[in-house]
Amino acid sequence: MSATAEDLACMDRALALAEHARGHARPNPAVGCVVTQQGTLVGEGWTQPPGGPHAEVVALERAGARARGATAFVTLEPCDHAGRTGPCTRALIDAGVARVVIAAADPDPIAAGGRATLEAAGIDVTTGLRADVAREQNAAFLHPLETGRPLLTVKLAVSLDGRIAAADGTSQWLTGSGTRQRAHRLRADCDAVVVGAGTVLTDDPRLTVRLDESTRQPLRVVLDRRARTAAGARVYDDAAPSLAIVGAEADAGHLVDAGVGVARLPAADGDGDDAGDLLAALAMLGSRGVQSALLEGGARLVASSLAAGCADRLAVHIAPVWLGDDGRPGAVGLDIRTLSEAPRFGLESVARVGDDAVLHCRAPAPVPDPGARDPEPHAPHGTSGGLRPGRGAVPPNTEAG
Amino acid sequence: MSATAEDLACMDRALALAEHARGHARPNPAVGCVVTQQGTLVGEGWTQPPGGPHAEVVALERAGARARGATAFVTLEPCDHAGRTGPCTRALIDAGVARVVIAAADPDPIAAGGRATLEAAGIDVTTGLRADVAREQNAAFLHPLETGRPLLTVKLAVSLDGRIAAADGTSQWLTGSGTRQRAHRLRADCDAVVVGAGTVLTDDPRLTVRLDESTRQPLRVVLDRRARTAAGARVYDDAAPSLAIVGAEADAGHLVDAGVGVARLPAADGDGDDAGDLLAALAMLGSRGVQSALLEGGARLVASSLAAGCADRLAVHIAPVWLGDDGRPGAVGLDIRTLSEAPRFGLESVARVGDDAVLHCRAPAPVPDPGARDPEPHAPHGTSGGLRPGRGAVPPNTEAG
Repeated sequence: MSATAEDLACMDRALALAEHARGHARPNPAVGCVVTQQGTLVGEGWTQPPGGPHAEVVALERAGARARGATAFVTLEPCDHAGRTGPCTRALIDAGVARVVIAAADPDPIAAGGRATLEAAGIDVTTGLRADVAREQNAAFLHPLETGRPLLTVKLAVSLDGRIAAADGTSQWLTGSGTRQRAHRLRADCDAVVVGAGTVLTDDPRLTVRLDESTRQPLRVVLDRRARTAAGARVYDDAAPSLAIVGAEADAGHLVDAGVGVARLPAADGDGDDAGDLLAALAMLGSRGVQSALLEGGARLVASSLAAGCADRLAVHIAPVWLGDDGRPGAVGLDIRTLSEAPRFGLESVARVGDDAVLHCRAPAPVPDPGARDPEPHAPHGTSGGLRPGRGAVPPNTEAG
Repeated sequence: MSATAEDLACMDRALALAEHARGHARPNPAVGCVVTQQGTLVGEGWTQPPGGPHAEVVALERAGARARGATAFVTLEPCDHAGRTGPCTRALIDAGVARVVIAAADPDPIAAGGRATLEAAGIDVTTGLRADVAREQNAAFLHPLETGRPLLTVKLAVSLDGRIAAADGTSQWLTGSGTRQRAHRLRADCDAVVVGAGTVLTDDPRLTVRLDESTRQPLRVVLDRRARTAAGARVYDDAAPSLAIVGAEADAGHLVDAGVGVARLPAADGDGDDAGDLLAALAMLGSRGVQSALLEGGARLVASSLAAGCADRLAVHIAPVWLGDDGRPGAVGLDIRTLSEAPRFGLESVARVGDDAVLHCRAPAPVPDPGARDPEPHAPHGTSGGLRPGRGAVPPNTEAG
């Protein structure tokens, strides 16, 4: 069955409703639902914060008896498992809905099977209408399910000549206050902020979200293969959860003794290069329920993310300044000989922020699961990790809706 | 007298009219004029192509007898000299205009004096209303008059890490076709395109404007201190005018013998550095009537323009690609130790062009006349240079309006 203009309009409405849930539904997906009876809207809703009802349940409650024989438009395949709320498939069947139109399929192995359950109950199901929009809306939810890794955004603040600091290391303030504010917003939108040990040793950053409004603090992750960071580093303070990811053989006693959350990389089965470590660390974070991560440096880690193909998004803030030949590059160790070897991204948006420009880019296609390098097999979505209570934070389990 | 809302509205209308003349009036300024009689618009006009009437004359002709006792709004101070057309001051006086409101003053030493002439005739004159907008509209006209140099735009196509080519020199196609089209548009909008000898030796570019519509070809200028370029280089072909600017002592016989236009830099009175050569070459071009120039490389010349403070505008096209540590930088030889030494520009605009981003930047304040380094004293606007007939092109003399 091909989509009618009415179907498209209803799904667009459902997608718009889902926007209300963005940032509030995490770790659940942000879903919208519209219920129509012979072309008349009889109910609509979006995912409520964790523990509250899912979009379908909200919309069906509003529709009441008018849901019998109705069509439901849902932006993500209805879940088929009972989490804190009952399965949405059951709610749709019980309400007597005749037809369900789904935008994107849900790859979550726990919540999946919604379509089959609905069809088995005699409901007419269509999938794929505006799937691209719906997938983008829930990119951070879908990405870990499909790759085993968090959706990784690499953040950089560079000069026009691509330098992050002058020859003497000065970088305050390369970009303006508007851009720095946006950088905090980027942190707040991610489950984790990731840096290398060198950045901690050099800059001793806090990596907290510092915005006027109160926000959730992401997990602060230090990729520290040799356990070089000190337990007194600001990134390990009590302002937010934190985690040091160290090498299999590293002596991290000083961190453990001080109560810092520590996780170990598996023994490298390859050559133990930086890119392999990064992929292993991301897989570890993915298995702990981290859906989205922001990589803030240093330059070697940024290069690793590009070399490993796990930089899913780039947020490049550009200050209209020249830092010259000896300025410090944003990525170090990226060995590219010719243009055809160069990692190319898609430009998603360009904007002006105060006196700076910001470019958002994305990897041209989904990055495949690295497979062999995974320290743990693809963990089902919602599996919780083993961070130490009190210091490390585990994002709550997910209920797909 | 402070400006009324009506005055502002009339001047804004005149500025909008002037836009019609942009690109058609060169080398004259693009001027707009509105004539009102007791609040009613009775005439308007803009600068016609060279040889045609100026904005004031067009507007006064439309107003006819209604110009008597009227107010004229003009975006640039009316000229006071007789070029191919009579002085605009005379037209305003003869028409019996009672009041003239001027946006920007005209610094042209030949055309200047308009305000004084009008006042001497008993006309009430106000200057400065929307002066910033008017100055921006005629930046390429005003800049050489105020600095002795063309308005210089530095054009670059770079990767996200500020590289113009990969390690092996490959750069086709770093940016997309839309960006390349824009680069040709930038050339068409300038009087001259400037490159260093190294760029000619390495890339052998044509530097012509290649657009679907027919456009004026800018003067192609090669800054070639040691006269290293060959007479057979494409930049010296017959497709467009060209000029080699060589050092005072250089042996440029092979270029002269082949009929290539050659100009000599004055003997350096300083240390003969690249930045000094560039300033001297720009002053030479300014004295020959070149109002605007586009610097397209190479990397040493770009660095010189930044070091010398003569990069008035930047047009930076950014491809969402990483070229890595060994990629070739867009500026080489820019010695900056710390952030406070870094040349900082104002961000004028950011836009998406196809798959690329383009940032337009400007020097924060007018760059002062380099004075001592000028090979020739500040030449009055419209003085023609001495390029060889047939090969070199001299932009037509200017009539300020």
